[in-house]
Amino acid sequence: MTGSVDVGQLKLGWARAHMPVLEAIRARLADERPFDGLTISAVLHVEAKTCVLALALQAGGATVRLAASNPLTTDDDAVAAVRAGGVETHAVRGESLDAYRAGLSTLLEREPDVIIDDGADLVALVHERRRDRGRLRGSTEETTTGVTRLRALEKAGRLMFPAVDVNDAMMKHLFDNRYGTGQSTVEGIVNATNLLIAGKVAVVAGYGWCGRGVAARLRGLGAEVVVTEVDPVRAIEARMDGFVVRPMREAARVADLIVTVTGRPGVVRAEHFAVLKDGCLLANSGHFDVEVSTADLAKMASAHRTVRPNVEEYRFPDGRRAYLLAEGRLVNLAAAQGHPVEIMDLSFALQALSAEYLAKHGSALAPKVYPVPPELDLAVARAALAPFGVGLDEATGEQLKYADAWQSGTQ
Amino acid sequence: MTGSVDVGQLKLGWARAHMPVLEAIRARLADERPFDGLTISAVLHVEAKTCVLALALQAGGATVRLAASNPLTTDDDAVAAVRAGGVETHAVRGESLDAYRAGLSTLLEREPDVIIDDGADLVALVHERRRDRGRLRGSTEETTTGVTRLRALEKAGRLMFPAVDVNDAMMKHLFDNRYGTGQSTVEGIVNATNLLIAGKVAVVAGYGWCGRGVAARLRGLGAEVVVTEVDPVRAIEARMDGFVVRPMREAARVADLIVTVTGRPGVVRAEHFAVLKDGCLLANSGHFDVEVSTADLAKMASAHRTVRPNVEEYRFPDGRRAYLLAEGRLVNLAAAQGHPVEIMDLSFALQALSAEYLAKHGSALAPKVYPVPPELDLAVARAALAPFGVGLDEATGEQLKYADAWQSGTQ
Amino acid sequence: MTGSVDVGQLKLGWARAHMPVLEAIRARLADERPFDGLTISAVLHVEAKTCVLALALQAGGATVRLAASNPLTTDDDAVAAVRAGGVETHAVRGESLDAYRAGLSTLLEREPDVIIDDGADLVALVHERRRDRGRLRGSTEETTTGVTRLRALEKAGRLMFPAVDVNDAMMKHLFDNRYGTGQSTVEGIVNATNLLIAGKVAVVAGYGWCGRGVAARLRGLGAEVVVTEVDPVRAIEARMDGFVVRPMREAARVADLIVTVTGRPGVVRAEHFAVLKDGCLLANSGHFDVEVSTADLAKMASAHRTVRPNVEEYRFPDGRRAYLLAEGRLVNLAAAQGHPVEIMDLSFALQALSAEYLAKHGSALAPKVYPVPPELDLAVARAALAPFGVGLDEATGEQLKYADAWQSGTQ
Amino acid sequence: MTGSVDVGQLKLGWARAHMPVLEAIRARLADERPFDGLTISAVLHVEAKTCVLALALQAGGATVRLAASNPLTTDDDAVAAVRAGGVETHAVRGESLDAYRAGLSTLLEREPDVIIDDGADLVALVHERRRDRGRLRGSTEETTTGVTRLRALEKAGRLMFPAVDVNDAMMKHLFDNRYGTGQSTVEGIVNATNLLIAGKVAVVAGYGWCGRGVAARLRGLGAEVVVTEVDPVRAIEARMDGFVVRPMREAARVADLIVTVTGRPGVVRAEHFAVLKDGCLLANSGHFDVEVSTADLAKMASAHRTVRPNVEEYRFPDGRRAYLLAEGRLVNLAAAQGHPVEIMDLSFALQALSAEYLAKHGSALAPKVYPVPPELDLAVARAALAPFGVGLDEATGEQLKYADAWQSGTQ
Repeated sequence: MTGSVDVGQLKLGWARAHMPVLEAIRARLADERPFDGLTISAVLHVEAKTCVLALALQAGGATVRLAASNPLTTDDDAVAAVRAGGVETHAVRGESLDAYRAGLSTLLEREPDVIIDDGADLVALVHERRRDRGRLRGSTEETTTGVTRLRALEKAGRLMFPAVDVNDAMMKHLFDNRYGTGQSTVEGIVNATNLLIAGKVAVVAGYGWCGRGVAARLRGLGAEVVVTEVDPVRAIEARMDGFVVRPMREAARVADLIVTVTGRPGVVRAEHFAVLKDGCLLANSGHFDVEVSTADLAKMASAHRTVRPNVEEYRFPDGRRAYLLAEGRLVNLAAAQGHPVEIMDLSFALQALSAEYLAKHGSALAPKVYPVPPELDLAVARAALAPFGVGLDEATGEQLKYADAWQSGTQ
Repeated sequence: MTGSVDVGQLKLGWARAHMPVLEAIRARLADERPFDGLTISAVLHVEAKTCVLALALQAGGATVRLAASNPLTTDDDAVAAVRAGGVETHAVRGESLDAYRAGLSTLLEREPDVIIDDGADLVALVHERRRDRGRLRGSTEETTTGVTRLRALEKAGRLMFPAVDVNDAMMKHLFDNRYGTGQSTVEGIVNATNLLIAGKVAVVAGYGWCGRGVAARLRGLGAEVVVTEVDPVRAIEARMDGFVVRPMREAARVADLIVTVTGRPGVVRAEHFAVLKDGCLLANSGHFDVEVSTADLAKMASAHRTVRPNVEEYRFPDGRRAYLLAEGRLVNLAAAQGHPVEIMDLSFALQALSAEYLAKHGSALAPKVYPVPPELDLAVARAALAPFGVGLDEATGEQLKYADAWQSGTQ
Repeated sequence: MTGSVDVGQLKLGWARAHMPVLEAIRARLADERPFDGLTISAVLHVEAKTCVLALALQAGGATVRLAASNPLTTDDDAVAAVRAGGVETHAVRGESLDAYRAGLSTLLEREPDVIIDDGADLVALVHERRRDRGRLRGSTEETTTGVTRLRALEKAGRLMFPAVDVNDAMMKHLFDNRYGTGQSTVEGIVNATNLLIAGKVAVVAGYGWCGRGVAARLRGLGAEVVVTEVDPVRAIEARMDGFVVRPMREAARVADLIVTVTGRPGVVRAEHFAVLKDGCLLANSGHFDVEVSTADLAKMASAHRTVRPNVEEYRFPDGRRAYLLAEGRLVNLAAAQGHPVEIMDLSFALQALSAEYLAKHGSALAPKVYPVPPELDLAVARAALAPFGVGLDEATGEQLKYADAWQSGTQ
Repeated sequence: MTGSVDVGQLKLGWARAHMPVLEAIRARLADERPFDGLTISAVLHVEAKTCVLALALQAGGATVRLAASNPLTTDDDAVAAVRAGGVETHAVRGESLDAYRAGLSTLLEREPDVIIDDGADLVALVHERRRDRGRLRGSTEETTTGVTRLRALEKAGRLMFPAVDVNDAMMKHLFDNRYGTGQSTVEGIVNATNLLIAGKVAVVAGYGWCGRGVAARLRGLGAEVVVTEVDPVRAIEARMDGFVVRPMREAARVADLIVTVTGRPGVVRAEHFAVLKDGCLLANSGHFDVEVSTADLAKMASAHRTVRPNVEEYRFPDGRRAYLLAEGRLVNLAAAQGHPVEIMDLSFALQALSAEYLAKHGSALAPKVYPVPPELDLAVARAALAPFGVGLDEATGEQLKYADAWQSGTQ
């Protein structure tokens, strides 16, 4: 279906009005034009907030080319609006995997100077197709999953260009992964099912930043939350935060809902389906659709049908049913509107500043994974204080001096 | 007052029964005796749990000498019992500052091989008195405040021996600082005042690990919590956790209760007392009694009296009153029983393992601040799983392989 | 637009699968057919769950006629499916007020034996049009708003027939008003805006059962919640639950979001718009669209446009903007899918049992407002235990005896 | 031990400073002297707050005589101070049951005009000893347990005088039972044990107002809370509030801590001890020490000793241990300081107003259980607004009119 430019522009306008940090950056970029003559290829969930980022980069002088990072998460109206604004865009909601891959290929045809990636699919494609980095100054990456792939490349000695790990910036993972994923995941689950969260046994697989957010929000809506973890420190943290912590093979027996946010494949698999409680909902908010094993589901189920948009029923031979949401893809993007606007304001502000950093300094950097420079992280934090209504204290001179002294103790 | 050996032994028995991680370490140490021939000087809050640590080190072959890290936090019964067990101890509840300092001096007279410090007072004394490290293999430190002093020493090029930063071990700060300080601080405030937390405006100065714990527990008891911070990232985290964030000069006007947990001096000072709400309670849970400026209080108040144990009333010329709890010293130790036993099990397990590490390897280490070796941190976490009723998942082979691959992406 | 029977049937199937209490009642009604020969006219939000109720009543022998209780809350697919099932239905999403009123009129043309009302619009119409109750055995009502109108009729000596106050049944207001409204209201707000709840100042007007639910869920998503109340007891309850309690004229100055759940008109009005914070969202979850004064908004605004589906921007002459969600109608039904299925299972179970009660006993009852008979309330509670995974204790003989004794005291 | 008048007066001063509602009543009573010539016999937990009430009644002209309602909850310093103030008091901390009963008897020797009771022990004694009410104008009662006994007397046709049910006043049970019991119970448990609440399985028996408070506060401190109930509606409420709900025979197997707040005997008994998890803590916050069966404990245990003040260890033949806190008496009074001062301000304000009501009108009232007159309840609520920092809204004329109209509906 073709989107509407008018509707798309309203959507972009609403998003922009709630992205003050990125908006201030856009104004400066328009002034300084650090991207003049450069091409930026961005692979992202193409919806309104993403388009605000694309247009901010364009305002800074860049030729921006956009492709979808997920076949199910494109907003066609936003695509129409951003195209009307002059950004070449390859994304159609519900496109085939072939179309998805063709989008990525197209982005590589004319060589980008900077890549903005989400899940590292474009970066992986560069490494498959090319022998050298060419004019590429570097890439940025904003997911845990993508950073894991970048580090695997680096560890294997294969990484060809500098990559900025936006995901691990404080103003990214502390907020996007936790509060963004938390809110949008419950939104997706509720949208897809119209079911009650209160009184449900909700199992959250993984107690990383995303898992913490999802667990907190599910509890905030009244669920009894059970956490599964492979890391003992995180497991004890979850316990002291008041959650039950169990292996998945026990949790699956009592779960009304399972949400995976681990970044790992096969978190819910055959051995768990074998004991799953009848009627259990299965949702994923990890980047790739590998966490709930759809292969195992297909193998074990004797019947399969769609019962609502974004809800597929798998019926096992013994009569038990499992309900897979959004085909096991990101439920917060497929069945909801993705992260809240204010969260993406922070994440995309970091993306824009990191892209600017690579434009300026990338050519001089060795092919490694780099953190976001702390001063950029801090700049985003400072810019976010007023929008979030936060009043800061200032350290006194005495306090700063005290931190450097070792003599003064018990008095 | 002299403590009772019998009462002290019951107290130690209760503590030991709830410290399974340390107890398992004690059993191994008794077997392996890594401290044979060594002297360990420990400066800690001398109460039942500390004595369980001292006896565990003794069981490992050490001559243990103990002194108080705070004049107000000694439990005389525990002292009686640990002395009866053969540990030389310098601590009397309510002792004078001179007596406190004499205790520290005594500990240095016969040279210790390992120091266990809490606030770095003993370490500072070594650096004042000595010109070389002598036989000292190193020290361990478990407070944010003490680590700050160690790093100042290191930065100034003055540190004479290796120091293990126990405070920043995951199994320490994630639990002791957050859940330990959180619970014991509200316990101290409620004990001292018999007042209601629900419906109060409670200001928490600092949103580090301690501040998070205190804020969460005050909210858990029904308070409206206002956070003050100097760090913009932490400030926005506090905001998204649902707290109000304001500078202290605004917060003081509406506060029914202020708790400081910053590790910095003068957090509540003259400019805040000038606008403080009548009847406001002032409590500190940071290591030193510098966070609420008692000097400013004394200067500004026209009258001063003790109205309950651990509660002093300061009356300002305009009639407003402020109530200082526990003289501005650690309210959770002075007006309550310190951290819960299970928390100290984790922290003291790390202390024992770090002391063992220094005993074995300290002589070979350069004079720097070292983290707790990760395998020790993990060992404590694993040992704590069963006591906390936590069931862990295990990563599958496929999952471990996936984390090292970069090729597989959107499918 | 015309709905799809197929899609509608899937929606009804999903709802029915999560309404076990009503389903058990349906099975019994189908067996006993207490409604044989009777007509039931129901005015309700016509969506999937409502259609499951209509078909359950039909299974009990009734001729069921259905009309919308709100022009914006109809699900056309559900209408198609319930019509295909033989239920006469007058409801089209987005219908005009004239069409809405025509629906109500039609329901009165052929005289119903029992009325199921939601907001008391049909009951009011009966009282305007008719001089006697005719064959009407009575009506049931499930909203606070509708019960207020019924009591006003009763107080004025005008009520013509018995009315069962389903709203005040325990299994209704404790769950539907609190957990149902709570979850669906935040769902509606998030759907309409894609904004973040965490870190927002969210003002909840009214701390009745609905307000408690909304406040709890907004806090559960990280908001700073401010409550407004006119009742001093409820106000202090809100305070001790940790909420800030302020008059609306103060709250409006700091609100990022205002939600009204009071059942009263003009809760947010000219005097509040005059001081409203720029960008404030205005949402209502009370039954009628009177709580946010759209008349005052229209009068005071210098510009007005729709910026997203369900979001209208009002711009004041001084540049401030207010965003009205869902035209001030029930945001949880207009911008979301209404109450969660499991909640409506409880409420509609009470509706079905109350309708059955009126069918059997209504003719013999005087024209008054009646509570739901306690045994029906309890029957619904008992039937809900298993679906909610609740295990009950049983009072021992000794305990029952103790409750009747006065002699045994301190021993 | 004899208490100190000076210490007691400081304690009373602190309490009075935080009881503004009662203080305003005291000032009016001192002016109007409605109790001139009357004797008020009060059986209450005799600590500082109670003494503030006694002195307020005395200021109103009454001869006040005070006895302990529980042998373990007396504060000897407060006794010394209130005696010095002229109130005849029969209470010594730790007194024998005989001494306790003698105190009650003494209060009946000279006939009281008004009785203030707590648990109905004095009322029961009147009914055992006397044949008529004599000059007794009536009694007030503030516990669920006492009201149950009064209603049993009334039902049996035995009640001799009017009794005001203070417990069910809104400003009593909504606050005292919920927030008062909640905070003080966790305080008592933590004081008695120094154990961590976070990460524990805490079982709360009973989800009445007290149980809700205890469950909320235990969760607020990080526990996994399991509720037991005999009432299906309350059970489902607990479930939707996010708690696990199980029969005690299942809950006891996993409990680290059990708190009883049911008002019923034998809530934890032989069948539960048989399966109790090793090390489980047993605490009671119901009025009488009957909820945990100490008889069954004594019968089943093979060894018994006190391991800390307020902690008794019972060892079963199979080696499992149970720890009974405060002998199964009110843990919040025995191991802590009872309800927070501000809570007792509300409850005792109701007591004072109810006593005044009986003094004025009791002689004319039939022997029944009466609610607190609503205007007194409301007066207390209004007086509490300012101390709790609550700002109220006022209903507009339009709103009041709307509530009485039935015509206006969907527009």
